[in-house]
Amino acid sequence: MDELWLWLAVAAGLIAIAYGVIQVRSILSASAGTERMQEIAAAIQEGANAYLRRQYITIAIVGVVIFVLVWLLLGLVVAAGFLIGAILSGAAGFIGMLVSVRANVRTTEAAKSSLQAGLSLAFRAGAVTGMLVAGLALLSVTIYYFVLTGGNGFAASDSQRTIIDGLVALGFGASLISIFARLGGGIFTKGADVGGDMVGKVEAGIPEDDPRNPATIADNVGDNVGDCAGMAADLFETYAVTVVATMVLGSIFFRGDVGLDAMMVYPLAIGAVCIIASILGAFFVRLSKGSTNVMGALYKGFIASAVFSLIGIALATHFLIGFETAFTASTGLTMSGASLFVCGVIGLAVTGFIIWITEYYTGTNYRPVRSVAKASESGHGTNVIQGLAVSMESTALPALVIIIAILATFNLAGLFGIAIAVTTMLALAGMVVALDAFGPVTDNAGGIAEMAGLEGEVRDTTDALDAVGNTTKAVTKGYAIGSAGLGALVLFAAYTEDIKYFAANATTYPFFAGADNLNFALHNPYVVVGLFFGGLLPFLFAGWSMTAVGRAAQAVVTEVRRQFKEKPGIMKGEEKPDYGRAVDMLTTAAIREMIVPSMLPVLSPIVLFTAIYFVGGKFEALAAVGAMLLGVIVTGLFVAISMTSGGGAWDNAKKYIEDGHHGGKGSEAHKAAVTGDTVGDPYKDTAGPAVNPMIKITNIVALLMLAVLAVRF
Amino acid sequence: MDELWLWLAVAAGLIAIAYGVIQVRSILSASAGTERMQEIAAAIQEGANAYLRRQYITIAIVGVVIFVLVWLLLGLVVAAGFLIGAILSGAAGFIGMLVSVRANVRTTEAAKSSLQAGLSLAFRAGAVTGMLVAGLALLSVTIYYFVLTGGNGFAASDSQRTIIDGLVALGFGASLISIFARLGGGIFTKGADVGGDMVGKVEAGIPEDDPRNPATIADNVGDNVGDCAGMAADLFETYAVTVVATMVLGSIFFRGDVGLDAMMVYPLAIGAVCIIASILGAFFVRLSKGSTNVMGALYKGFIASAVFSLIGIALATHFLIGFETAFTASTGLTMSGASLFVCGVIGLAVTGFIIWITEYYTGTNYRPVRSVAKASESGHGTNVIQGLAVSMESTALPALVIIIAILATFNLAGLFGIAIAVTTMLALAGMVVALDAFGPVTDNAGGIAEMAGLEGEVRDTTDALDAVGNTTKAVTKGYAIGSAGLGALVLFAAYTEDIKYFAANATTYPFFAGADNLNFALHNPYVVVGLFFGGLLPFLFAGWSMTAVGRAAQAVVTEVRRQFKEKPGIMKGEEKPDYGRAVDMLTTAAIREMIVPSMLPVLSPIVLFTAIYFVGGKFEALAAVGAMLLGVIVTGLFVAISMTSGGGAWDNAKKYIEDGHHGGKGSEAHKAAVTGDTVGDPYKDTAGPAVNPMIKITNIVALLMLAVLAVRF
Repeated sequence: MDELWLWLAVAAGLIAIAYGVIQVRSILSASAGTERMQEIAAAIQEGANAYLRRQYITIAIVGVVIFVLVWLLLGLVVAAGFLIGAILSGAAGFIGMLVSVRANVRTTEAAKSSLQAGLSLAFRAGAVTGMLVAGLALLSVTIYYFVLTGGNGFAASDSQRTIIDGLVALGFGASLISIFARLGGGIFTKGADVGGDMVGKVEAGIPEDDPRNPATIADNVGDNVGDCAGMAADLFETYAVTVVATMVLGSIFFRGDVGLDAMMVYPLAIGAVCIIASILGAFFVRLSKGSTNVMGALYKGFIASAVFSLIGIALATHFLIGFETAFTASTGLTMSGASLFVCGVIGLAVTGFIIWITEYYTGTNYRPVRSVAKASESGHGTNVIQGLAVSMESTALPALVIIIAILATFNLAGLFGIAIAVTTMLALAGMVVALDAFGPVTDNAGGIAEMAGLEGEVRDTTDALDAVGNTTKAVTKGYAIGSAGLGALVLFAAYTEDIKYFAANATTYPFFAGADNLNFALHNPYVVVGLFFGGLLPFLFAGWSMTAVGRAAQAVVTEVRRQFKEKPGIMKGEEKPDYGRAVDMLTTAAIREMIVPSMLPVLSPIVLFTAIYFVGGKFEALAAVGAMLLGVIVTGLFVAISMTSGGGAWDNAKKYIEDGHHGGKGSEAHKAAVTGDTVGDPYKDTAGPAVNPMIKITNIVALLMLAVLAVRF
Repeated sequence: MDELWLWLAVAAGLIAIAYGVIQVRSILSASAGTERMQEIAAAIQEGANAYLRRQYITIAIVGVVIFVLVWLLLGLVVAAGFLIGAILSGAAGFIGMLVSVRANVRTTEAAKSSLQAGLSLAFRAGAVTGMLVAGLALLSVTIYYFVLTGGNGFAASDSQRTIIDGLVALGFGASLISIFARLGGGIFTKGADVGGDMVGKVEAGIPEDDPRNPATIADNVGDNVGDCAGMAADLFETYAVTVVATMVLGSIFFRGDVGLDAMMVYPLAIGAVCIIASILGAFFVRLSKGSTNVMGALYKGFIASAVFSLIGIALATHFLIGFETAFTASTGLTMSGASLFVCGVIGLAVTGFIIWITEYYTGTNYRPVRSVAKASESGHGTNVIQGLAVSMESTALPALVIIIAILATFNLAGLFGIAIAVTTMLALAGMVVALDAFGPVTDNAGGIAEMAGLEGEVRDTTDALDAVGNTTKAVTKGYAIGSAGLGALVLFAAYTEDIKYFAANATTYPFFAGADNLNFALHNPYVVVGLFFGGLLPFLFAGWSMTAVGRAAQAVVTEVRRQFKEKPGIMKGEEKPDYGRAVDMLTTAAIREMIVPSMLPVLSPIVLFTAIYFVGGKFEALAAVGAMLLGVIVTGLFVAISMTSGGGAWDNAKKYIEDGHHGGKGSEAHKAAVTGDTVGDPYKDTAGPAVNPMIKITNIVALLMLAVLAVRF
């Protein structure tokens, strides 16, 4: 039975990929519009390719160094896991980008005929990325697991340690790519966006995406490399790490139980049914007759996916583990299959609540965004103040949802219940990523319409599509970080259970002799030190990321001003700006700036461990690093949510004003709202979303550090 | 010996008060300038009095309710402690304000003759507040302790529980006033400042403090009620709570040890010698001949205080407990008097490092402020982005200093060592508050010079004094929150030790039967829930505070615009604006807005306890509340430091530009910098500093809740 579900997981992964291939063909067969449109699209494609190529080369250098290190320290099998994770995470991003830069111009063309046609094309492009992310992640974890266990199941395997280390390394590979992609892409896109807007919109008074703005191609390139490729790599990583962590936890909790193999396969089974559910749900994304409610159309798809998932998880629970079957974890806790099913349902509910709360804080129909819009009337300063207020306030409800979910799932099925809830949350990634990846496509579509000088009607259609993009983008980020918050205890448990395992086998792993009862209590000053140290990481990381965007944007501002000055013909429309210059400049800047912040989470666990090792000994060092893992999520959760929701609120407050409120476009309130939007850009698209992979890396490096300490010391 | 030091502490408190009285007389004897200057000063005094009267009436209503509750639940003695804390905390703020609104105009007058004369007057006015805060706090704790122990020492007392509860209640009274004062005052001052600047500086293009601006008197009133009275109440509270917590910890750790009474008195002795050291140090604040380095003059005073304190603590250690004497804590840890002395030195060092780091992040001579200034060149957006980046980055080094201090002091003398370090840190409060309270005086002095139309030279002198005020104000806030971070474990220990005590005496306190071994480990989901719940409080609190300021500021903007429109003569200088209207409006707004956020920390421990009680039972509820106490400091530390340092950096970036860099006054960069300053205002003067009393209240309410559970359930 277990093996059957493994095959089903593989099948689901392949179906997702097949879905992607079919959709790509169908998208490519659509018309790419006029020559002028194709020319613009080609420039965007070229810029995006050039950037990603350079980015991947840089990452490859770092990756090879780490690959060799992992190989030397933990062996080839584990290093292979790292490689698989890295390559597939990168591939998910790269393919997503390839589709995105081809779908954009076709969406513009489709928007000429109807809103529904534009929506359909853009959403399907997003769905390609979404299904590929979920499919590749599930496929890689499943196949690698299958190969490592030799097809005989985990319980029968005699190299359980290698299996776990290999899976963790797979997560590490994926995470490493994802932080680089998120951060590098984020710096690129927001450097272009902020810099371009500040000269174009504020100084020169030309609209967004005006072809006279030398940064406009770079801005559109940025949407693809940041919002699409970066996000895809991030979600691939989150998915893989969550499934891996749940399997690791299952392997520990049910060690010796007859249900061990079923429990290890259960997360994969959930992943499998949810991918199918997401694909089915994707067909439900369509406008009701005569309606223009794009958000409603997307919600229909999401709700359908959730309902199908519910049914699928029920089937998986019934056939794989049985609703009535009782399992006993090594902690002594007994749980039934039904409890685990309810945990899965809670995971779906958390996703729903986070979407709903995020929409409340970032949608134009509710108090928060309107309060920011209203504050714009009294100027730039009050706009930013109110935006920051909304940004901080928006963290409370998601945190409460996570708190309630932890309490509920833990009481149902212990830590493993929490893990199942997170897995289910992420199993919907195919659908959620689709909603998100739809954003850059429509954003680009609007840009192309503007640059190609198409009629205002087309731009109105693409704008209608783009408007919901701000909310759906905030949703995905809230969802990713929310899963990290809910999963914090799972990753922490993986850490402590690893230590327990090593300590119990201290003859093999002498470093951990006596480490079976570490003091993780809050009385222990080393624990508090770990919490503070972990707590500072998201702040420092976000601060550095913001600085990087600011620097990149200032360089763009200088460059655009220079072009305007040296080529006065640009503003008159007589001379063509040098788009390539801005793209090149940003490529160099983004890649240079992404390195140092990305190394922060990689090195922090090692530095903290070493420092405390010399002050308080190895047991306290292990305790401090463990506490650091929770510290980083305790502040990271709030930093990330405040940044992503706040940024969305600023962006939509601007849109709300542009829709004719508080004086509309060109008013003083609008100028203030543009400032807020500018501030929100790196908040929501660079620093905020990169906090999630940062947290994951900190956790995974800590786990690998344990493995190295076990084997080498 | 112990009793002698109690008397010395009383004497030191009285000396501080005497110093205050003498200085007040000397300040009042200085000339108050021309009739016009006195008229302006009178308007400020009137506004400040009116505001504080209304604020204290509101607080009194809340206070009386809580007083009655404490009386009913814990008895009259404990309720009396609450009353003492509340009244003295309020008095410290009120007296500070009284002095401040009289010293301002006299500083303007003195600035006519020389920078040294202005500095001397303003600093002495600040020193009055500083010494009163430290003196009253020390005096109240000492005398109340003396009365409660009947003069026989703690060890001999038979009502130890009442003594501890009474001391905690004293801290609660002080905290309650301080959060209202910080928040209400903060909303008032920044509502006026932001609102006034946005219309005056940005729209109408008139300079700060221009008499034509109808919000200008309100702005100057705000400096006194927020920056002076609010800060004084805050530091009174921090001082009192820290000394109380250290004594509580001493009472627990050395229970049964012969050194018990000496250990209980030791924190009071440190307070006593440091007050004397601060008074002596105050005489060292003077400019070197021909120098205009105001910051240097203030540093001389601080360094002198620190050196005298070092000597004083050495004497106190020698005579009270002995360098060589070994003490054994109830935990089994043995420590010598010398170790405790070193912990005290570390406390001084932490203060020094925090001052130094804060100056780096907020001073105009260093990279961070200059980067914000430079970013202003490319516009409002990049200024705010860079300011936020600096604000987040500025948290890392202070956190590292606190981490190192925790490790060092804990290894020297356990938790009590940490407590002694925090006590020493706060024992310097007299000097630190003096540096801070000097700020509003010089700020007002400049305002009066401007409004009275004095020659530019006078304004230059007051500006030179005011410029360092931004840094010293940031320093005090970093210092207050830093002490909270360092003291987090102490407050947490007070909480857990209380539970242990109740559990050990379960026949008297049946609620706590079986609670002697609560699970505070990070594996426990209830602990993680507590961390998250605590973690969300500073974010929600800060978000609400920012909203409150935004709302107040928008009301001011509307009012100022209305006056400009309805009375066109104002801008021509022919008509007098209606200053009183803005003051009234802000008074109402600030008092209305301060209530809800202030109740957040009071109610949170009770709500969390009740919720978890029903989900997981009382032991888990106690664990979750304990974790909440750490959660609130883990995020609070970073939120508070980022807000106060970031705000200081924005303010000084503006000043740096006004000094002629990046285009100087009136340039586009200057406008962007004004926006940044506006955003920084509620960051550094409302939300950020109010986080400190918020954390303290959460802790103290939790302690009182335990006492109530013990006695009543």
